[in-house]
Amino acid sequence: MKNIFSILFLIGAPLFACASGGLIDPLEHQLPFIITLLLVAKLGGALFAKIHQPAVLGELICGVLLGNLAYLSGDFISFFEPVKDEEFIRTISEMGVIILLFQVGLETKLSSMLKVGLSSFFVACIGVFFPFVFGYLISSWLGYGANSTVHIFIGATLTATSVGITARVLQDLKKLDLDESRIVLGAAVIDDVIGLIILAVVSALASSFLNGGEAHISFFSVLVITAKAVGFLVSAIFLGHYLAPWILNLSKYLRVEGMSLVMALGFAFTLAYISHMIGLHFIVGAFAAGLILEEAHFVGFHYHENLERIITPLSDFFVPFFFLLIGMKVSLSVFTHLSVVTIALVLSAVAVVTKLAAGLGVVGKNIDRLSVGIGMIPRGEVGLIFASIGLGTGVLKQDVYSAIVVMVMLTTFVTPPLLKWSLSRKEVSKP
Amino acid sequence: MKNIFSILFLIGAPLFACASGGLIDPLEHQLPFIITLLLVAKLGGALFAKIHQPAVLGELICGVLLGNLAYLSGDFISFFEPVKDEEFIRTISEMGVIILLFQVGLETKLSSMLKVGLSSFFVACIGVFFPFVFGYLISSWLGYGANSTVHIFIGATLTATSVGITARVLQDLKKLDLDESRIVLGAAVIDDVIGLIILAVVSALASSFLNGGEAHISFFSVLVITAKAVGFLVSAIFLGHYLAPWILNLSKYLRVEGMSLVMALGFAFTLAYISHMIGLHFIVGAFAAGLILEEAHFVGFHYHENLERIITPLSDFFVPFFFLLIGMKVSLSVFTHLSVVTIALVLSAVAVVTKLAAGLGVVGKNIDRLSVGIGMIPRGEVGLIFASIGLGTGVLKQDVYSAIVVMVMLTTFVTPPLLKWSLSRKEVSKP
Repeated sequence: MKNIFSILFLIGAPLFACASGGLIDPLEHQLPFIITLLLVAKLGGALFAKIHQPAVLGELICGVLLGNLAYLSGDFISFFEPVKDEEFIRTISEMGVIILLFQVGLETKLSSMLKVGLSSFFVACIGVFFPFVFGYLISSWLGYGANSTVHIFIGATLTATSVGITARVLQDLKKLDLDESRIVLGAAVIDDVIGLIILAVVSALASSFLNGGEAHISFFSVLVITAKAVGFLVSAIFLGHYLAPWILNLSKYLRVEGMSLVMALGFAFTLAYISHMIGLHFIVGAFAAGLILEEAHFVGFHYHENLERIITPLSDFFVPFFFLLIGMKVSLSVFTHLSVVTIALVLSAVAVVTKLAAGLGVVGKNIDRLSVGIGMIPRGEVGLIFASIGLGTGVLKQDVYSAIVVMVMLTTFVTPPLLKWSLSRKEVSKP
Repeated sequence: MKNIFSILFLIGAPLFACASGGLIDPLEHQLPFIITLLLVAKLGGALFAKIHQPAVLGELICGVLLGNLAYLSGDFISFFEPVKDEEFIRTISEMGVIILLFQVGLETKLSSMLKVGLSSFFVACIGVFFPFVFGYLISSWLGYGANSTVHIFIGATLTATSVGITARVLQDLKKLDLDESRIVLGAAVIDDVIGLIILAVVSALASSFLNGGEAHISFFSVLVITAKAVGFLVSAIFLGHYLAPWILNLSKYLRVEGMSLVMALGFAFTLAYISHMIGLHFIVGAFAAGLILEEAHFVGFHYHENLERIITPLSDFFVPFFFLLIGMKVSLSVFTHLSVVTIALVLSAVAVVTKLAAGLGVVGKNIDRLSVGIGMIPRGEVGLIFASIGLGTGVLKQDVYSAIVVMVMLTTFVTPPLLKWSLSRKEVSKP
């Protein structure tokens, strides 16, 4: 009824003010964005699938194009600028990554994950240790007139692993049932727990930098953080083991259209929220929820609907927003500063090589350590959280911060093609 | 990472300000609402399904309970108060009703709709004429010291038909393939076009009331509005007839996970947006999109995925928000005013009886006119738009406005059980 209301607006503002107060649709503003983003993401993904690349790469690149349309066209096409700060689109995209990891959890067997648990643990530890040490050393070597706090920050930024990209690539390539995939998923969860501890340390450093005093990092507080995170994961999986069949039973008893979907989503969202409250990322809880429901399904509980099948349309709708938005947040203007690009390239090289080394943590035979290492490369939003704390406290200067952003970006974009290449290589070498 | 950020907040506000600026998740605020609303709606629906009532009634009533928790508990439990104005939840709920009508369109054959088109037309016309005339007369009889503009407004408010509730009840009862259902759906679309014209007239009246002058309603402008609305519907269906197979073909060619879902949703959202821009309700375009894709599917185009099946999980997720929110907007406090309740009951009686009479517009045999009439009863948000324009311009006093809100509410709540009863009655009487 927009036309009518426009007329009303001309007639009298109070008239319009009331009518629009509670009744004009918030959707009128959002729908054009939703339509365009959805179609662009999906078409971009389809084009990349056509040239035998993971669809997610197409979504990321389309995101970069949309997000930089204003910059590239000299502010001529600025239609998509508001999207980046649109709370609705951001919320949809966050729900996307939660649903993705829930779905990935549903496709992953807990027992198979535990079987490669030792490998995951070593990969995670090496994948934190090497990036931190070499990040620190390289940063000291580059120098840029900074003190050791800065170098510790750089090191911390390089430790993070963002599993969203890798999980999606493995899903695109239908490789989630490989041991390599399970090792990476497990390592990413462990990395998030370690990341929590690092965040605590780094925050203490940042605050001491702000106050100009000494950094106080109590061993006890680190212990509490660790205990909370590990406690959540263990108790979620143990409680879930007993609770999940009960939930599934209830949804079976309350036979109404879509009940099982809503119960499963409610479960996933709840664990995601709890894990966020504890300090872990949303997606750790969502992944755990998927594992638990897969197991409940697996241990002989005959479920009247195939959860994976009914969750797929939701992930088809929600997930593209997440990857498109990652792309849109990339600012191409950063690349015009040579100093930024130089630091970024050095950091990226360190980021890639040290995480590749993490693949060496794998124990056992017949596992492609290179693929595992590549799966650990993307830094994603976790690295950005460290970096922005650094920027906010003044520890990091604007150019170093921009370089970190570029590094996060590069590690995100190289992973899909590299992973596709390394996994197909493994296939070829198979007997 | 909320705990960590809380610590940071204590340490230093600037630190926190930066970290939360672009990085703390908007989802943290929304997720508890999403989880609770989703589970409450679905459990409420399931309970009502258990006692053999349409699930939607359970969703509505749970909505009323949630929305009035603060009022009923003396502001003790005010957790759900912010939800009513939460833009994210409102947008999700609007998407819900779009997806619902798209889905209903997918389950409806255009040819079968056209077969009962004459019945739909008569039902729509009678369903506007009677409510308007009797609404005007009853309002004049009640008087409440008002002039004829008020009475015309009351009459106009009673003409609207909101098809969301009826469509959902028919879906819950799996009765969408009855001729009665097609007649109601067709009549509701025609009603929306007539409603547009009435809105134009009523707006002109309201503005003349504001300016104290004469009402100017040009015959030409009414003609333009009608032509636009009818033109949109006809051209959407004709163009869609040729465009839809092409869209489906493209999505078939671009074989990537979920492509058909995204193309179909993109099509539905686009038509919904255009119809909104023309002045019709979103759901008219969404319903047309469903009809078109159903037809494209029907005319021998073999589609690689069953659209209805893949749209169901999305509707299971989105739709409950819409009906829950309708319930939440009901304010029980209105019922404490005797004068409001009296006017409301009289208006509701007129609203129900005159729309029942619309069922007499059905031509042909073996069609249950009572069920058609009942299907036309709910007024929904269209009636509220008229009423709020009346309130905003001062045409309607607060008590009359509240009475209209109660009337809209009652017509919405009586429809699910009445429709279930009348349709089961028809079944019994069948040979």
